[in-house]
Amino acid sequence: MKRQRTITQMREKGKTPEKQLSDEEILSIQEKDFRLLMLKMMQDIGNKLEAKMDTLQETVTKEIQDIKLKQEEMQNTITEIKNSLEAANSRIQEAEEQINEVEDRLVEIMDAEQKREKRLKRNEKSLRELWDNVKRNNIHIIGVPEGEEREKGTEKIVQEIIAENFPHMGKEPLPQIQEVQQVPYKINPRRNTPRHILIKLTKIKDKEKTLKAAREKKQVTYKGTPIRLSADFSAETLQARRECHDILT
Amino acid sequence: MKRQRTITQMREKGKTPEKQLSDEEILSIQEKDFRLLMLKMMQDIGNKLEAKMDTLQETVTKEIQDIKLKQEEMQNTITEIKNSLEAANSRIQEAEEQINEVEDRLVEIMDAEQKREKRLKRNEKSLRELWDNVKRNNIHIIGVPEGEEREKGTEKIVQEIIAENFPHMGKEPLPQIQEVQQVPYKINPRRNTPRHILIKLTKIKDKEKTLKAAREKKQVTYKGTPIRLSADFSAETLQARRECHDILT
Amino acid sequence: MKRQRTITQMREKGKTPEKQLSDEEILSIQEKDFRLLMLKMMQDIGNKLEAKMDTLQETVTKEIQDIKLKQEEMQNTITEIKNSLEAANSRIQEAEEQINEVEDRLVEIMDAEQKREKRLKRNEKSLRELWDNVKRNNIHIIGVPEGEEREKGTEKIVQEIIAENFPHMGKEPLPQIQEVQQVPYKINPRRNTPRHILIKLTKIKDKEKTLKAAREKKQVTYKGTPIRLSADFSAETLQARRECHDILT
Repeated sequence: MKRQRTITQMREKGKTPEKQLSDEEILSIQEKDFRLLMLKMMQDIGNKLEAKMDTLQETVTKEIQDIKLKQEEMQNTITEIKNSLEAANSRIQEAEEQINEVEDRLVEIMDAEQKREKRLKRNEKSLRELWDNVKRNNIHIIGVPEGEEREKGTEKIVQEIIAENFPHMGKEPLPQIQEVQQVPYKINPRRNTPRHILIKLTKIKDKEKTLKAAREKKQVTYKGTPIRLSADFSAETLQARRECHDILT
Repeated sequence: MKRQRTITQMREKGKTPEKQLSDEEILSIQEKDFRLLMLKMMQDIGNKLEAKMDTLQETVTKEIQDIKLKQEEMQNTITEIKNSLEAANSRIQEAEEQINEVEDRLVEIMDAEQKREKRLKRNEKSLRELWDNVKRNNIHIIGVPEGEEREKGTEKIVQEIIAENFPHMGKEPLPQIQEVQQVPYKINPRRNTPRHILIKLTKIKDKEKTLKAAREKKQVTYKGTPIRLSADFSAETLQARRECHDILT
Repeated sequence: MKRQRTITQMREKGKTPEKQLSDEEILSIQEKDFRLLMLKMMQDIGNKLEAKMDTLQETVTKEIQDIKLKQEEMQNTITEIKNSLEAANSRIQEAEEQINEVEDRLVEIMDAEQKREKRLKRNEKSLRELWDNVKRNNIHIIGVPEGEEREKGTEKIVQEIIAENFPHMGKEPLPQIQEVQQVPYKINPRRNTPRHILIKLTKIKDKEKTLKAAREKKQVTYKGTPIRLSADFSAETLQARRECHDILT
């Protein structure tokens, strides 16, 4: 916007042609006409400036109103956000409390588990010991040909094995056999192992003596065929041995 | 606001009555008065418009100041909200990490539980087998009248039962009895069942032979009274049977 | 800002010295000069006020522009915050759902634990009973001097003890001994207790009779030295006794 326009220029935009008078013309007009012209010009200046000011005021008022509306709108959004944030914070706090509770319960559970783990281990040890106790008088005889026991009974076979291999035990009383059984022997369920003869001796000492004698003789036989005598292990001990074997081979 | 009011109208609002001159009056006043009037009118127009402009400026300045204050206030709130939101996000992140940790620990716990469950099952099986092993040489005799054993002892009764029912076992050696006991027999604790006689045989084969002979004879008696012989089951097996029974009846 | 300055004052700020005329001078100047002065003054007032208005407009426009820029900036921040808050709310919701899941799984775990706890207790009871069953025919003999058994064997010692202490049991058949063992007896592993002699009798009745006879005799001896006979308790029973003892002493 040019600020340097003169009243003359302003006059040019006016609608009344009588204003478009040069200085010379104004000097030459009648006193009466000059007076009327002066009044008109003054009126025009006042009106024009006032109109301009009104326009400015109107424009600014509109702008300010718009700004305030926008501001109010933003203020509402901010208030909404504040409320929403407050709600979010409440939820976070509640979640945190729940997490703490959960963590406390986890600790409780893990403590309880640890105690239960100990008991489980103790029970497993106790079970192992019980099995070992139940089986401690047992001897396994492995390698006697199948079918042999059908004819004469396993008890007879065991007596023959003792007579064949441990005649020197004759000085001492023979091991007292409480019971003889034939059992499927599952060291490794994938291998097809023959049935075993399981001897339950009355006394643990007899078992120890017999196994010691077998170890010393190195080669134990039944009718010349090599057979093997071993202690009876609990399933747990066998499991442990199997795992060792799987690692080593 | 009317923009079309004339200087005349403006004059009417003025306080100086000398301005309220009609065009005719102005044309009729003295040259000197006209000159003074012109000066006064010019001064008035300038003052009036300037005053109006100042008021506008003042009003707008005030409005803008208010807006800026409000804006500043909102900006502060926004900054507060941003900080609060940042803090909330940190808490959320921390909570998420805690939840992840908790979930990891849950997985660990559940893995550990699964392993422990397996061990527990294995132990239960082992226990069941142990009980069965411990009880496998046992026979229960149910139905011998109470009081009978006080007179002659349970061992004598058992011998009489064998003689009465299984004379044909005479060809073979009689079953070796290791021990005879009188036991409360709790199949169902709610029923009032009589005490049982529990025989522990030395050999499992003798138990099997005796129970087979009893099954074949169908009716086993003690001095003519029907009695019943049964294997000795572990508590676990009895429990399983009882559950089956409860479902079936 | 003073609003009361007159045209005269305004004139003083003008650059044209001919305006600085007093009323008297204006009254005295030539008609032609007066007319030119009037035109000039009108032009000046218009220019001056218009310039002032333009400045005001410019200033206000600038202010409003600044405010709007700031407002836009804030609006952007608010939008960002809203989005960020929405994202936070999503995360919170997800976290809450995860927490609920975790809590559900905790309940499941605790339920499973409770069931496992029951099974564990049942197994422990079963184990205890099994041990008691396995050991129920056993008698411990405590206090026989060490080394004694090397010469003659523990079995012989036991026979001597029975002969020395329970001759009145002669009416009845002597207790049938199934097996005699020497065992480390660990009531309290911190105390250095001597090895014990463990007798396994064939019949539980023999154990009960022997222990009853020992209690009645009050003082049991081996070659005059006081010894002690006791039942064989399972590790669990001993543990319970030890705890009681620790509390009582």
